[in-house]
Amino acid sequence: MTYLINSASDFAHEAVQGFAAANPQYVTAVHGGVVRSTETPKGQPALVIGGGSGHYPAFAGWVGPGMGHGAPCGNIFSSPSASQVYSVAKSAENGGGVVMGFGNYAGDVLHFGAAAEKLRAEGIDVRIIKVSDDIASNSLEDHRDRRGIAGDLPVFKIAGAAIEAGADIEDAERVAWKANDATRSFGLAFDGCTLPGAEEPLFHVEEGTMGVGLGIHGEPGVKDLPMGTASQVADLLFDGIAEEIPESHRSGGRVAVLLNGLGTVKYEELFVVYGRLAERLEGSGLTPVQPEVGEFVTSLDMAGLSLTLVFLDEELESHWTAPVDTPAYRRGDFSGLTPLKEIPARAELFTPGEESVPAAQQESEKLAADLQGVLELFEGVIAEHEAELGRIDAIAGDGDHGQGMALGSRGAVEAGRRALERGAGARTLLVHAGTAWAESAGGTSGALWGAALTAAGRALSDDSAADDPAKMQALLNAVDAVRRLGGAEPGDKTMIDAAVPFSQALEARFGESQDLAAAVTSAAVEAQQAAEKTADLTARLGRSRVLGEKSLGTPDPGAISFSLLMEALGQRLGQKS
Amino acid sequence: MTYLINSASDFAHEAVQGFAAANPQYVTAVHGGVVRSTETPKGQPALVIGGGSGHYPAFAGWVGPGMGHGAPCGNIFSSPSASQVYSVAKSAENGGGVVMGFGNYAGDVLHFGAAAEKLRAEGIDVRIIKVSDDIASNSLEDHRDRRGIAGDLPVFKIAGAAIEAGADIEDAERVAWKANDATRSFGLAFDGCTLPGAEEPLFHVEEGTMGVGLGIHGEPGVKDLPMGTASQVADLLFDGIAEEIPESHRSGGRVAVLLNGLGTVKYEELFVVYGRLAERLEGSGLTPVQPEVGEFVTSLDMAGLSLTLVFLDEELESHWTAPVDTPAYRRGDFSGLTPLKEIPARAELFTPGEESVPAAQQESEKLAADLQGVLELFEGVIAEHEAELGRIDAIAGDGDHGQGMALGSRGAVEAGRRALERGAGARTLLVHAGTAWAESAGGTSGALWGAALTAAGRALSDDSAADDPAKMQALLNAVDAVRRLGGAEPGDKTMIDAAVPFSQALEARFGESQDLAAAVTSAAVEAQQAAEKTADLTARLGRSRVLGEKSLGTPDPGAISFSLLMEALGQRLGQKS
Repeated sequence: MTYLINSASDFAHEAVQGFAAANPQYVTAVHGGVVRSTETPKGQPALVIGGGSGHYPAFAGWVGPGMGHGAPCGNIFSSPSASQVYSVAKSAENGGGVVMGFGNYAGDVLHFGAAAEKLRAEGIDVRIIKVSDDIASNSLEDHRDRRGIAGDLPVFKIAGAAIEAGADIEDAERVAWKANDATRSFGLAFDGCTLPGAEEPLFHVEEGTMGVGLGIHGEPGVKDLPMGTASQVADLLFDGIAEEIPESHRSGGRVAVLLNGLGTVKYEELFVVYGRLAERLEGSGLTPVQPEVGEFVTSLDMAGLSLTLVFLDEELESHWTAPVDTPAYRRGDFSGLTPLKEIPARAELFTPGEESVPAAQQESEKLAADLQGVLELFEGVIAEHEAELGRIDAIAGDGDHGQGMALGSRGAVEAGRRALERGAGARTLLVHAGTAWAESAGGTSGALWGAALTAAGRALSDDSAADDPAKMQALLNAVDAVRRLGGAEPGDKTMIDAAVPFSQALEARFGESQDLAAAVTSAAVEAQQAAEKTADLTARLGRSRVLGEKSLGTPDPGAISFSLLMEALGQRLGQKS
Repeated sequence: MTYLINSASDFAHEAVQGFAAANPQYVTAVHGGVVRSTETPKGQPALVIGGGSGHYPAFAGWVGPGMGHGAPCGNIFSSPSASQVYSVAKSAENGGGVVMGFGNYAGDVLHFGAAAEKLRAEGIDVRIIKVSDDIASNSLEDHRDRRGIAGDLPVFKIAGAAIEAGADIEDAERVAWKANDATRSFGLAFDGCTLPGAEEPLFHVEEGTMGVGLGIHGEPGVKDLPMGTASQVADLLFDGIAEEIPESHRSGGRVAVLLNGLGTVKYEELFVVYGRLAERLEGSGLTPVQPEVGEFVTSLDMAGLSLTLVFLDEELESHWTAPVDTPAYRRGDFSGLTPLKEIPARAELFTPGEESVPAAQQESEKLAADLQGVLELFEGVIAEHEAELGRIDAIAGDGDHGQGMALGSRGAVEAGRRALERGAGARTLLVHAGTAWAESAGGTSGALWGAALTAAGRALSDDSAADDPAKMQALLNAVDAVRRLGGAEPGDKTMIDAAVPFSQALEARFGESQDLAAAVTSAAVEAQQAAEKTADLTARLGRSRVLGEKSLGTPDPGAISFSLLMEALGQRLGQKS
């Protein structure tokens, strides 16, 4: 039960504001989250860690010397939007690039990824670390496809310490992945949690049973077992992870240990469990290094706990035990850190709405005006098909695809117009339009279209005109970004089902004819056909939303809207040439 | 709900063991609790803080440089026993005396007090700080009679910092009381907590309401109000404390702020509340100094929160913001503390059962043998009356008085025998016997009789015989200890109803006659009459356990057993003289 709220919809935002008010020596609230309130060394990579709210102290509680540089804070259990991530990263970045860290969830992958695209378009180096420690969520072979749960703490702690010790972005990325690959977690839930304003918990665990392999967003476990004693629970957690003890630690070794309470399993209970764990660790020759027992990655008031082990080598251990000083995580030898009060306050913070428009060369300005015409064309096409796209989406989705596309394209057109008025070149126009599309549309397709426009912008320049190969590259970049961010493959019944055939056909036709308009038109036909196959399948599936068979996937009207827009683009290019 | 237990009766003990296992760099488990695992400077006062378990991080989580030196850990929501407190204090003490800190509850007052008696009998200086911050539990005039809740944190933090900064015991005591007198807390509960192994919470708060003025042992609030929004709750808490803003802060000033979650109100909710509090503080000209928002003094899984303000002056602020490094509470400028790894491990720890028996002078050994005879006499008298004392107790109590007295006297006789075998003098014999009585009997009367024997021992010496005035002083000391520790006054229907008339008569008769046997016998008659008045009253009251009128109190068979034992003592003295 969440007792203390003013308004359910403002809850996460108010929590961030209150958090920042309580910790001014550590953090400052910016659009979308918090960044350190103290200055960071010029050229130091910025560790930007985040995810949804409801997991405190993850993630905002870990911003400070020795750990994070900023934390975008999404809504409860929802990824921060790309614009939130971008805003926080812009404020945190100080010339050394950005290491983004988040738990491996689709929404986070998408929104952090879209923000990364935009930062990269500005020339900022961005590396992405997806924490994937939950052994219950996927096989050992697919370790990096697992979910991220309490392993967030050691991975970000180690990455932050490496950066504090002087790692550059390359090295910080390497150490963070190394930490992630050495980290395993396993959890249990005894009861669900309740979203602010909701009357009922997201789920219940039947009395006398426990859900094995819980998630931290109120996902119930993957199977139920009869409730055990504290020692049996300790054994279950330990034995689960013990199956994955790496070669290096089979006959003993040093491990970071985190026994994490999800919210309502309290400290004394965790210590009773830890007593047994200490015996099991000793029995396996594993020496716990600065073990942590408490609440680190919570899930509102969920009743549950998880065990995390990090199989340490010398490098990881030195970073695990290094000093850190953040609102919710502090550890000594403290003399290794400069006291906060001796660090000057951070002077430059990014404020959204004041995005810079670099001076552009005249040819690029002309192209920008032309691209604005494309955006307006898109807006018109979508408006014409909005209702139809909504109906298609409603067959197997939530019916908001048409509305989202309409809001997104409208936002992009408005942002494009403002950018043009300020003399934007082609690249800047598309980056601004992409940001606005994602922000206005929200949701998955909004983030993907936003990233697509941003990535397209990266193929263009503010300093020169673009020839047809450059324009084609922009289109290929856009499809690439969608594929990389969305993580879908052709056949998954997503926009990619149309976009990939489009992309392949475009490259082939243009290679043959060197006629961009013809190539786009021809590729759009292939996209159309692929999209219709998707639509046919959608229709055949009827209203059955949970299909059970992975091969069918969840149909997506994105393929339809993609092919419609490419068809319009081909026609426009034909008319103009 | 408490989910993770092995055995309800071992829960608190297992939690302490697991806690110590997880935090070896900070603490070592000893009998009754934990002490710092690192050495403390010779001559530094030891801050021994404690209370029941179920409040983590209070109190064990606060043991480390800059805060506590040791923490006795009682059962869930129960005071540690006097022997637990004594054991922890013995291990923590390092030549500078002991400052005991605990929340102001009857059980803690009694058991810490009894342990203090014993330590003082050994020549150790002990000061006692009873935290009394809960404004809902008593009037402002009787501030020091209020309960202790989350104010424990700032009071112990400030006392620990003062000691770290070099305060001697006198000064540490002064600063601690000053901190307590500047601290105000006010709390709300939304639902109760469940003891380990129990099926049902200790209480429920009706849905849609909140209990105002909660306790931290599952006590419900003193009144119910309709549930408010987060901001209304913040206002209620702030306005409650604002009524007691001291003169020094009426037009503004600096305050330590603690917004404490009781267990199930989670962090994001607390931050939403803090956001409003920050506005209210500002509106009153109060500047928060390093505010703390989180879980500090919990009550298992109780749903509730409390606000604590400490009205700071320069001295209190310097200690509030000083560095501290404990398992659950760490704060910088960390460079002000010696890193833990550079502090040597604590070498000498006290182990109960190996209490020292100092060499005794022969006359004192003879007296000790004689006193052992008195203990055996007491054991016999109690055995004879055990059933009757139980019956009297059952009229208005829980019927265990006879059994408790029997267990206590038997334990005392056994401990006395072992001490005699090791050559104990009179003082040591009584101190050992007192400890054993309290330990074996448990409960209130056990603690009081234990303290009485210990205090009697302080009037005697291991180095010399005792004349009659010294023996009389021993009896007066015993009654004094009972009165001081129990806090009862004549007429409250406790052992004091008999003991105080006895004490007064003893001093008067001995002054007249200089005949101890006659004086004791005569005083015992007065005690007997006083006890019978109590018993008459008990009988008249019948079985009505909750009497409603304070003047009647709760009758206590302790007065009966006291007078029986004194009568037997008088007879024995008469036979021997």
